[in-house]
Amino acid sequence: MKVLIVGAAGMIGRKLAERIAADGGLGGQPVEQLVMVDVVEPKAPGGKIADIVCKAIDVSASGATEPLIAERPDVVFHLAAIVSGEAEADFEKGYRINLGGTRDLFDAIRHEHGRSGYKPRVVFASSIAVFGAPFDARVPEDFALTPLTSYGTQKAIGELLLADYTRRGFFDGVGLRLPTICVRPGAPNKAASGFFSNILREPMSGKEAVLPVADTVRHYFASPRAAVGFFLHAATMDTSAIGPRRNLNMPGLSATVGDELDALRTVAGDAALSLVKQVPDETIIRIVDGWAPDIEAKRARDLGFTVEDSFEEIVRAHIEDELGGSVRAPA
Amino acid sequence: MKVLIVGAAGMIGRKLAERIAADGGLGGQPVEQLVMVDVVEPKAPGGKIADIVCKAIDVSASGATEPLIAERPDVVFHLAAIVSGEAEADFEKGYRINLGGTRDLFDAIRHEHGRSGYKPRVVFASSIAVFGAPFDARVPEDFALTPLTSYGTQKAIGELLLADYTRRGFFDGVGLRLPTICVRPGAPNKAASGFFSNILREPMSGKEAVLPVADTVRHYFASPRAAVGFFLHAATMDTSAIGPRRNLNMPGLSATVGDELDALRTVAGDAALSLVKQVPDETIIRIVDGWAPDIEAKRARDLGFTVEDSFEEIVRAHIEDELGGSVRAPA
Ligand SMILES: NC(=O)c1ccc[n+]([C@@H]2O[C@H](COP(=O)([O-])OP(=O)(O)OC[C@H]3O[C@@H](n4cnc5c(N)ncnc54)[C@H](O)[C@@H]3O)[C@@H](O)[C@H]2O)c1
Ligand SMILES: NC(=O)c1ccc[n+]([C@@H]2O[C@H](COP(=O)([O-])OP(=O)(O)OC[C@H]3O[C@@H](n4cnc5c(N)ncnc54)[C@H](O)[C@@H]3O)[C@@H](O)[C@H]2O)c1
Repeated sequence: MKVLIVGAAGMIGRKLAERIAADGGLGGQPVEQLVMVDVVEPKAPGGKIADIVCKAIDVSASGATEPLIAERPDVVFHLAAIVSGEAEADFEKGYRINLGGTRDLFDAIRHEHGRSGYKPRVVFASSIAVFGAPFDARVPEDFALTPLTSYGTQKAIGELLLADYTRRGFFDGVGLRLPTICVRPGAPNKAASGFFSNILREPMSGKEAVLPVADTVRHYFASPRAAVGFFLHAATMDTSAIGPRRNLNMPGLSATVGDELDALRTVAGDAALSLVKQVPDETIIRIVDGWAPDIEAKRARDLGFTVEDSFEEIVRAHIEDELGGSVRAPA
Repeated sequence: MKVLIVGAAGMIGRKLAERIAADGGLGGQPVEQLVMVDVVEPKAPGGKIADIVCKAIDVSASGATEPLIAERPDVVFHLAAIVSGEAEADFEKGYRINLGGTRDLFDAIRHEHGRSGYKPRVVFASSIAVFGAPFDARVPEDFALTPLTSYGTQKAIGELLLADYTRRGFFDGVGLRLPTICVRPGAPNKAASGFFSNILREPMSGKEAVLPVADTVRHYFASPRAAVGFFLHAATMDTSAIGPRRNLNMPGLSATVGDELDALRTVAGDAALSLVKQVPDETIIRIVDGWAPDIEAKRARDLGFTVEDSFEEIVRAHIEDELGGSVRAPA
């Protein structure tokens, strides 16, 4: 089996590659070759796959994905994207990469399908940003696509293409509407959603973190580990059970910032909790107000996708996966 | 005021142009220039506008719409599209015209906006084909975009672009999800929906028509006259009341084929009714089965869009607009 990951230097892409390399296979089938592609050259993980190819490729460059698809990978994971803030700041870049890059990749597959009947499984990283307020406390399963950002618009268009290309038989696509991934490892970034992770990750490493919203704010989460699980399941599941609606709300944990802080106290103690400083930020308050507090994901759960049940579980996954199993006590 | 109609040789585009030319204005403002564009050269209607320009232009050709937008029309009606059957038969043509043409037109406006702050009203002809089964007997207002055709996919993508370009301030867009337009004038065509019009139009001209489905089939309709009304209202309404969801389910009449036949009998008599021949067609039965029987359009009704209340009204509009006021009795 050959596997291609596009966006393999990113947070989720890297973890997905690590997991596949560690397992040496996908859904019980051995993976002979893993191709990792990103605009930044990805690093090959250790593990059981001898043939790992890493390439620096800009998916939005003309013809860039055709040679990757000419290798006829059995599974294509498409995670390359610029994120919400950058797509909002640079309109043309967002459309070029998030829409143009996705369409080029899908068309490369369609062309190869036309030549040889090639029909891979394609797993596309979409986002709950396809939903925008106003909505009820819980976004229902079949809610309208009402993005309030260019990023969400580009993801929604990717979903529509995925569904149509799948219906046409060019490939076998599954779109995953990912919850906000938390705890995001690495340095704090400027994404408006960054604080959801910062207020857990930083105190667990003995550092201060800023909380810009009230602790009553409710949102929808999954851990990086759960996200990797979504991709693996989507790559190997029986897609005939999905039906024509190929884009699925992933299960998530609906929780408040207060729930996060409770989990932090339970796992890392009051000293860690005291490192979280409340500094209200009107801009972030307003942005976060447009985000879904909860999303129905019965279809995905029935199809076998699973996620954490509590923030404590999410925090413990972070400690195991990122901190070698233990929290650094603040001085 | 300058008005541009793209797709002006089509059924609705032509009627819209005729109506604007007859009125000599739009929303009480005089129209000094009307530009009519289509891949087939449109014919200028008579009326009160001295300056009517007709051009044969393929909107999907590179750079085709830039010169039209350089004229800075105040209102842009975008109706150019290839229809469902053709977009399904020719994948690349459908994407090139229905998606590529729309995006090029929107980008031409965006570029002119960037140069000069130009910000026209844009009215986009979408379709209830953005909704695909399964759904309840009545598609709710905020139902998911779940097209089951490439045409519906292309319209849904056009809607998403319209909403994002409007949110960004490039133009002031309104997308109209048109019901099936009935009675469609002209010769019978091969659209799967054609029979809905054929079974009224042909008998009223003394000709036979084939009914390929059961008379219990329910669907969602508006007359060509109502459709023109939608476009005029969308061009002149106060858009600040719409909010961020710029694509609106147009009001329609939910009615059965039986309701159509009853209206035909009432208006044209039993002799006309006897010209309708039941010849079941499994392919058409299956296609029509995926179409919405009814659609909630409270938002559009609240915003002032109106439609017929009965099929008799729809039939009488056809007789007035197409048959000079009277039905030709069958021999
Ligand atoms: N992390 C989240 O909370 C979250 C939530 C919803 C959806 N998603 C989506 O999941 C996917 C992965 O998320 P992530 O958190 O790993 O993001 P990330 O930013 O860490 O990774 C995205 C990767 O795409 C790469 N990329 C950007 N432009 C590219 C181009 N032109 N060509 C090739 N590669 C390019 C980037 O270099 C980066 O490595 C993305 O598509 C993202 O939009 C993430
Ligand atoms: N009639 C309906 O029942 C209905 C229902 C829903 C939506 N719509 C939409 O409303 C719009 C008008 O519908 P209509 O019934 O008048 O359709 P129509 O087919 O009569 O008119 C469409 C026009 O677009 C023109 N066109 C096609 N490709 C073009 C190109 N590349 N460049 C320029 N012009 C091009 C055609 O020549 C045609 O004159 C269309 O966008 C259609 O998809 C119609």
